[in-house]
Amino acid sequence: MPKVSEQHREQRRRQILDGARRAFGRHGYAGATVPVLEQEIGLSRGAIFSYYPSKLDLFTALADDARAREGDLWLEQGFEGVVRRVAEQEPEWIGVHAEAVRMLRSDPELRARWASLAGGGAQQRLVERYCDLQAAGEIRSDVPVDSILRFLGVLVDGLVTQRSAGFPLDVEGTVELVRAALQPK
Amino acid sequence: MPKVSEQHREQRRRQILDGARRAFGRHGYAGATVPVLEQEIGLSRGAIFSYYPSKLDLFTALADDARAREGDLWLEQGFEGVVRRVAEQEPEWIGVHAEAVRMLRSDPELRARWASLAGGGAQQRLVERYCDLQAAGEIRSDVPVDSILRFLGVLVDGLVTQRSAGFPLDVEGTVELVRAALQPK
Repeated sequence: MPKVSEQHREQRRRQILDGARRAFGRHGYAGATVPVLEQEIGLSRGAIFSYYPSKLDLFTALADDARAREGDLWLEQGFEGVVRRVAEQEPEWIGVHAEAVRMLRSDPELRARWASLAGGGAQQRLVERYCDLQAAGEIRSDVPVDSILRFLGVLVDGLVTQRSAGFPLDVEGTVELVRAALQPK
Repeated sequence: MPKVSEQHREQRRRQILDGARRAFGRHGYAGATVPVLEQEIGLSRGAIFSYYPSKLDLFTALADDARAREGDLWLEQGFEGVVRRVAEQEPEWIGVHAEAVRMLRSDPELRARWASLAGGGAQQRLVERYCDLQAAGEIRSDVPVDSILRFLGVLVDGLVTQRSAGFPLDVEGTVELVRAALQPK
């Protein structure tokens, strides 16, 4: 495939995901009908569904993309960067997260699919990063990296939940307490 | 009012809240229609609405009751007891929590009302408990009690979110990392 075409496809994909995020965030999964998706994305249903064969595929791709971007941010700016992003981010991203949780709750098939998603490899890179931090003595080694990452994941979900319910976050307090939780003994 | 009548009213109130929890947990707020509420509670709409004048009043009372019970558990068994309860609790309670978050997100009036609820005084008793723990040197004093309780509240919301999305919890890891976060320096 010629390079210009690949670039074009990647741009289109980004356009679709950005529009779909607005559509799902504002209208919820059920409310993001095909006309609403066409409107927010600015492409016809034919064009959209040539990239993502179903609405569920589109939503899953969006969730995976959000996870990959969160992972990249986490790797670049540390957990503190993620906390700040949640505290400051636009409400529409938050709506997608809440919607994903609701759908995961009611749909075991989606849950299996979700668990198999790689998030652009972000999860694996995070595991490597935290193993490195343990090896360098920067975080405690008496708790497995898996437990540490699950703990931090729970915190992110809680922060998103509180933000989505409209409550402000205590960024400094959170960051300080997390630092103490991970400190080498 | 004679004592037997007060007892009767309290029993009825409990019957209504227990049935309403099942109704909202299984069917969501919109799906818990008046006939569904009558069915799950086992009382007529007249009887139900003589205690709670509207569906929103009933839902708010339920959320406040859940908060009071969580507070009592926390005071009796510590934060670890709350984590274990979330890990083991019945999915229908979880559904009510998710629904409350969704409603708080979309309804600023409900948010204001929620903030003014006392949760049976549980929040105030928790503040006193954690102040006592600081005074006794059992937890760190360099972070305000408010930050500590908000941090733990975020964790509870995150744990409930992960459970509601169908993921298992790492109780031991969570408890150990929280202990370290609060440890006096």
